[in-house]
Amino acid sequence: MRTEIITIGDELLIGQIVDSNAAWMARELTQHGFEITAITTVGDQSEEIIRALDNAFGRADILLLTGGVGPTNDDITKHTLCQYFHTALAFNEEVLLNIESIFLKRNIQMNQLTRNQAYVPVRSTVIQNRSGTAPILWFEKEKKVLISMPGVPYEMKTAMTGDIIPRLLEKFMVKKYICRFYLVTGITESGLATLLAEYEHQLPAGFSLAYLPSFGYIRLRLSVWGEENSLEMKQQSRKLKQMLGGYFVAKSEKAPEELLGEILRRKKCTLSTAESCTGGYIAHMITVVPGASDYFEGSIITYNNRMKEELLKVDSETIRSFGAVSNEVVSRMALQIAGKMKTDCSIAVSGIMGPDGGTKDKPVGTVWISTFYKGELIVQKYQVGHSRTENIERTANLAMLQMLKMLLRK
Amino acid sequence: MRTEIITIGDELLIGQIVDSNAAWMARELTQHGFEITAITTVGDQSEEIIRALDNAFGRADILLLTGGVGPTNDDITKHTLCQYFHTALAFNEEVLLNIESIFLKRNIQMNQLTRNQAYVPVRSTVIQNRSGTAPILWFEKEKKVLISMPGVPYEMKTAMTGDIIPRLLEKFMVKKYICRFYLVTGITESGLATLLAEYEHQLPAGFSLAYLPSFGYIRLRLSVWGEENSLEMKQQSRKLKQMLGGYFVAKSEKAPEELLGEILRRKKCTLSTAESCTGGYIAHMITVVPGASDYFEGSIITYNNRMKEELLKVDSETIRSFGAVSNEVVSRMALQIAGKMKTDCSIAVSGIMGPDGGTKDKPVGTVWISTFYKGELIVQKYQVGHSRTENIERTANLAMLQMLKMLLRK
Repeated sequence: MRTEIITIGDELLIGQIVDSNAAWMARELTQHGFEITAITTVGDQSEEIIRALDNAFGRADILLLTGGVGPTNDDITKHTLCQYFHTALAFNEEVLLNIESIFLKRNIQMNQLTRNQAYVPVRSTVIQNRSGTAPILWFEKEKKVLISMPGVPYEMKTAMTGDIIPRLLEKFMVKKYICRFYLVTGITESGLATLLAEYEHQLPAGFSLAYLPSFGYIRLRLSVWGEENSLEMKQQSRKLKQMLGGYFVAKSEKAPEELLGEILRRKKCTLSTAESCTGGYIAHMITVVPGASDYFEGSIITYNNRMKEELLKVDSETIRSFGAVSNEVVSRMALQIAGKMKTDCSIAVSGIMGPDGGTKDKPVGTVWISTFYKGELIVQKYQVGHSRTENIERTANLAMLQMLKMLLRK
Repeated sequence: MRTEIITIGDELLIGQIVDSNAAWMARELTQHGFEITAITTVGDQSEEIIRALDNAFGRADILLLTGGVGPTNDDITKHTLCQYFHTALAFNEEVLLNIESIFLKRNIQMNQLTRNQAYVPVRSTVIQNRSGTAPILWFEKEKKVLISMPGVPYEMKTAMTGDIIPRLLEKFMVKKYICRFYLVTGITESGLATLLAEYEHQLPAGFSLAYLPSFGYIRLRLSVWGEENSLEMKQQSRKLKQMLGGYFVAKSEKAPEELLGEILRRKKCTLSTAESCTGGYIAHMITVVPGASDYFEGSIITYNNRMKEELLKVDSETIRSFGAVSNEVVSRMALQIAGKMKTDCSIAVSGIMGPDGGTKDKPVGTVWISTFYKGELIVQKYQVGHSRTENIERTANLAMLQMLKMLLRK
């Protein structure tokens, strides 16, 4: 079932906001067997929205819109949809009740602008917004469906999961999308493609292999449409794993932090981190996972050398001799944090993330990572890139992958 | 100058990756006076790419493409562009030299797939990729321009900043985009719109006011095209600031973490954080800013109560009586971390981010934030939302804003 997404908002076109809604919707819909064929972003201008609707409706069966449905004057999606479907707004009592109950819960006063949200297009079916004031609108036209949702991520997600996907599944019979994911590390994208050239060549018709590079690892996706290919998928999957050899980490779609959490929980192990250059990003990634408190104890972030000495008992002489970015310092940090927090495992990192701070011997991108587990310490040096934010992300992933491999090995 | 962005990649359509490239490009181009009128995302299929090119070229003068230019088989942008511009590939010696120098620098072996990247469309002008192996291609057609770039963010950014924007500015004379940003907090979007209704009404033609809500704050953007409006902009800006009254935090486009860094540096103050529920996210946001080590000392993340007692000397009796999410506990945390790290300022947070852990008295979203500066402690309770990741982000912003306001007040 061909599906398109249109995200609406001037803030997207001036790059003020990253469009994470589209990615989230695409992911959810794909997993339920809908095929996303295009994503379009337009501004808060009627003509632009109508042109995008015309184009997309010419190609797709399902159209999902987000944004431009707030109470302020720059939100024009509702009026534009009236124009597009040749209909008018009418007051809807149920929507008002929903808005009132939300304002009551939040204990804030309602004003006229918010009250106006209870006016909805006559030709649409209203789906109540369970977590916000802007109603969700469902239009049908020549067996095609258009749904307008708020751009607020939490409201959009609640509506998608609770109402829209179930209704779409009921309305459209769709082929099942089957896919397997493989987490691979220690090889470049082109190196991996060379390794898998023959394998790709022998894949049966309909099967496709995609390379999804992330910072510090590559995810492979083997996919095909249609339940009838399940058995073949199993065989091709086994073959692929063999081909990957030592580069294979896990057969999983999960992000490193989720996988790490899963394995720590399974092995009943606890974890702590001592971070310098990542400034808390590893701890953050680990604690984004719900229930992380089951295995994560905490972290000490020592962003300067004095803190490394005082809080992690790194000898000042060690720092002077080897530098803060060294095998010796991260080793000490990993052992100290595991001891201090009484955890089974620990991760310690120190590096130069840029743009400044690099030297000839230790250029920007130099990182030392130490991981501790069952009395053993693994210390490795990595060379990451040039961009600060990417370096932080890459270092965090490399650190979690090093820990992950250590846990999976034993 | 009407500009459109097309991002190419199956990984975007299945939601594996969030399209942050488009936002970055849109932001950079807007600031240089180009008007982004649409962003389109399509998969790695020739027909889809050609249809998107046809549509976009019908509307825009400048077309920027990213993605699908890697060395693997699923990368088909280059071949599709040959088809679209009725041209063929030819070997380019300079591109090969560039690729070789990059492989030499990274000290890795080159394979045939990478060598193939030196084949470029005859009808294009090649811009050397300074940080990767895929060449950047510049096409011209009936006074319009199409540029194809890699999807790797760092490579795209280097090319945009170093080559593409300067060349576009040279080729196209464009009107200047003038805008001012205002950081506002403590009011809902609709409340703000009501407050500013009259102000918006009196704005001269061409001026527009946009509401850009983030987690924990709203950014207002007042904008107009054309240098000739500079003086009027100044007057309207002053008027707007007056209207905002106590909700106004700063006249700045900067994110809270950047603004906080700027003010800490100006006041020569140092900062530390003690985090529970945010799990290091505040420290991470602060250290994403280059040069943060000038004012940020570090952080202790106590993800469980035992760590709060041992590392931050929070009395176990206090935790038992008031709970870990309480005025008493965050106050102690803020004072302790400032003392331990010898900083002028400190931030401490404790809360329930969900999805589990809520109680009737302290539902999911309950957060206590304490900020310390010049011997004074401010402690405030907030109620954030229901989504874990959004709650973490919102809490971090609220904490930084509380610190920011305290610093600006004194």
